[in-house]
Amino acid sequence: MAQASIAYADMFARVHERTPLVHCITNYVTVHDVANVLIACGGSPIMSDEALDVPDIQAICGGLVLNIGTLNVRTIAGMGAAAEKARELAHPIVLDPVGAGASALRTKTASQLLEAGGVACVRGNVSEVKALASGSSTTRGVDAAAGDAVTEQNLAEMAGYLQSLAAATGAVVAASGAIDLVSDAERTYAVRNGHPRMAGITGSGCMLTGVTAAYLVANPDRPLDAVTCAFAMYGLAGERAAERAEREGVGNATYSNYLVDAVSLMDASTLEAGARVELVG
Amino acid sequence: MAQASIAYADMFARVHERTPLVHCITNYVTVHDVANVLIACGGSPIMSDEALDVPDIQAICGGLVLNIGTLNVRTIAGMGAAAEKARELAHPIVLDPVGAGASALRTKTASQLLEAGGVACVRGNVSEVKALASGSSTTRGVDAAAGDAVTEQNLAEMAGYLQSLAAATGAVVAASGAIDLVSDAERTYAVRNGHPRMAGITGSGCMLTGVTAAYLVANPDRPLDAVTCAFAMYGLAGERAAERAEREGVGNATYSNYLVDAVSLMDASTLEAGARVELVG
Amino acid sequence: MAQASIAYADMFARVHERTPLVHCITNYVTVHDVANVLIACGGSPIMSDEALDVPDIQAICGGLVLNIGTLNVRTIAGMGAAAEKARELAHPIVLDPVGAGASALRTKTASQLLEAGGVACVRGNVSEVKALASGSSTTRGVDAAAGDAVTEQNLAEMAGYLQSLAAATGAVVAASGAIDLVSDAERTYAVRNGHPRMAGITGSGCMLTGVTAAYLVANPDRPLDAVTCAFAMYGLAGERAAERAEREGVGNATYSNYLVDAVSLMDASTLEAGARVELVG
Repeated sequence: MAQASIAYADMFARVHERTPLVHCITNYVTVHDVANVLIACGGSPIMSDEALDVPDIQAICGGLVLNIGTLNVRTIAGMGAAAEKARELAHPIVLDPVGAGASALRTKTASQLLEAGGVACVRGNVSEVKALASGSSTTRGVDAAAGDAVTEQNLAEMAGYLQSLAAATGAVVAASGAIDLVSDAERTYAVRNGHPRMAGITGSGCMLTGVTAAYLVANPDRPLDAVTCAFAMYGLAGERAAERAEREGVGNATYSNYLVDAVSLMDASTLEAGARVELVG
Repeated sequence: MAQASIAYADMFARVHERTPLVHCITNYVTVHDVANVLIACGGSPIMSDEALDVPDIQAICGGLVLNIGTLNVRTIAGMGAAAEKARELAHPIVLDPVGAGASALRTKTASQLLEAGGVACVRGNVSEVKALASGSSTTRGVDAAAGDAVTEQNLAEMAGYLQSLAAATGAVVAASGAIDLVSDAERTYAVRNGHPRMAGITGSGCMLTGVTAAYLVANPDRPLDAVTCAFAMYGLAGERAAERAEREGVGNATYSNYLVDAVSLMDASTLEAGARVELVG
Repeated sequence: MAQASIAYADMFARVHERTPLVHCITNYVTVHDVANVLIACGGSPIMSDEALDVPDIQAICGGLVLNIGTLNVRTIAGMGAAAEKARELAHPIVLDPVGAGASALRTKTASQLLEAGGVACVRGNVSEVKALASGSSTTRGVDAAAGDAVTEQNLAEMAGYLQSLAAATGAVVAASGAIDLVSDAERTYAVRNGHPRMAGITGSGCMLTGVTAAYLVANPDRPLDAVTCAFAMYGLAGERAAERAEREGVGNATYSNYLVDAVSLMDASTLEAGARVELVG
């Protein structure tokens, strides 16, 4: 497999130079983590979910996160209004279809947001992506089902799910797991950064969605590479946080903070040296 | 007083083996802590409060947390719909009547959720439990009133409040405080684990409610013991977190993380050795 | 410039003695931090935003925080109802106009809450205060615009904005930044406590708003001094947290916890010795 030729250091630097403002409509479980990780990675977060407020807020931002983790009828309306303004301004939208496949409302809402257009990236776990790609899945709540784990054996098959959704929607489709996969209609990268402890905290995926938006806003010309770079940076931060957590013998809540800390302490050369990305399709 | 003969190690192990999915409708102040402590104790959290979403979500879970800490008319409807599905599927419901006695809406909502049936456990502070048991209390906001502290002197009287509510509702009634009391209609346990620092953080009670639900879902046959075991485990984690916090000289926010950490680092033999539970009635 | 003669130790002690209950309607991004910092500083938080619930909750509290960071039509109604009860009971209201100037809804809501009366303090960044004072600003999302930084050079001009708003409304107007300014219609204090790391976390301003409310409730006779004391105490905590964070090489999430920790570990003599406050107008 070929090593990926992604301009990690440049992409990292542009996020820090441009301080991309990211408007987030995200669940209230992990919203605080999303805000802090956006600052940590070099961006700046604004949260607003009220339909009457979101057009103005989106107008001063560079991109939009739509995370349906605690969706309700009021915030679904807010998401629609924010997405409309984002499309009008050609701002990238990152959709996190939390729990798609687990409830009819979630599957339908995620599908409608995707079909409305303007989604630059879908960021979920494999079960959620399959639910969107095929209309069915075995989602286990908000975690990926065991049978949906990406392994060296099923990697090509899983990449197929992502690419079919990418081809149908024009979005970069990115699924996190033990091995992350990031696809557009033509290529797929596998990202082997990350650490099992990331699955032991809430917000791990939601934070990555936020970081992904910051990378897309700051690096608009190469969306596939930007998303992949965000995944590698975040996964590497998870590894470094795990080293610290193991050394100090801490549990999952402190690890969660160390993960955000590691994002804030990341530098371009560490990322360049630590990214483990391969072109796999 | 007799030592309790609770199968701590077995109950602990079952939570970790079964990874109980717990659907939470809980306040937005401490929801992140509740999610992380549910993972830490061996369970898995899903948050959903939209009436149109909760039946599907409850259907894939094993139990339900209803915490009224930041209730509103929309989420009250969501709680009702989720509880209806939980009753239909015979999933245990844990009710946390945050601030019952402090406002008419809270007292009424908690009472209605309790009267609708299916509540396997009420988990609150003594003031909240008294408000539900007697229709009046001296709740000081969301904390127990000073006159409602459980002491060695008033322990029998306080147990009486719990048992009357347990007898009237069929639920296990559990009140946390300096001494925790856990009652069903026939027996009451006193749990002497815990640490005063737990009162110095937000979310201490809400997290225990989440852990209680995980223990009930994984240990459905002995609800009184399951709740008591959850209280002992969590209280012991609070003690161990306090040792670390004192040693390092940290304040309340870091202590809050250490508490969740200690839950994630707990093991069965530590629990077995550290549980301080007595049958008191 | 004259040193301020503020009774730091007395004001600090009164917060800890009186445990002021503060009712907060605040954004869901940083609400957990606000709850923990209120406990840390010696107060006690209650969150409630439902219009049917807030009159009862406000009635048992001593003051009210209105923070519009994630406002929506439902919570705006809750804010109005809570403010009405607070005025009726002469409880101090602290308004945090998050994002005023960034959207029409935020500017209008903040203005209406202010005009309705009873606001004892407006606590924002300079851009937000200017948006309220002049009806226009260059707010960059929820952060102050670069051109709105308070410097030694423009300090008198910035103080003018604050004093004009204080004179027009009767509220203490307090703007945080590299240099904080706290004004009533007659005097302005500059507070030089604080640390740049406080700008690298979410919730820094929201937490200060909560602390400010606790100080006002516990020290009702001298509102200007109470707000200034809250700012000095919180800024000093930020400095002490930064020392610890630098020593340990941690990132922004852990720093956020250390900030709350430092508030909980503060004592009166440290505050007395560390407050850097000047009367500047």
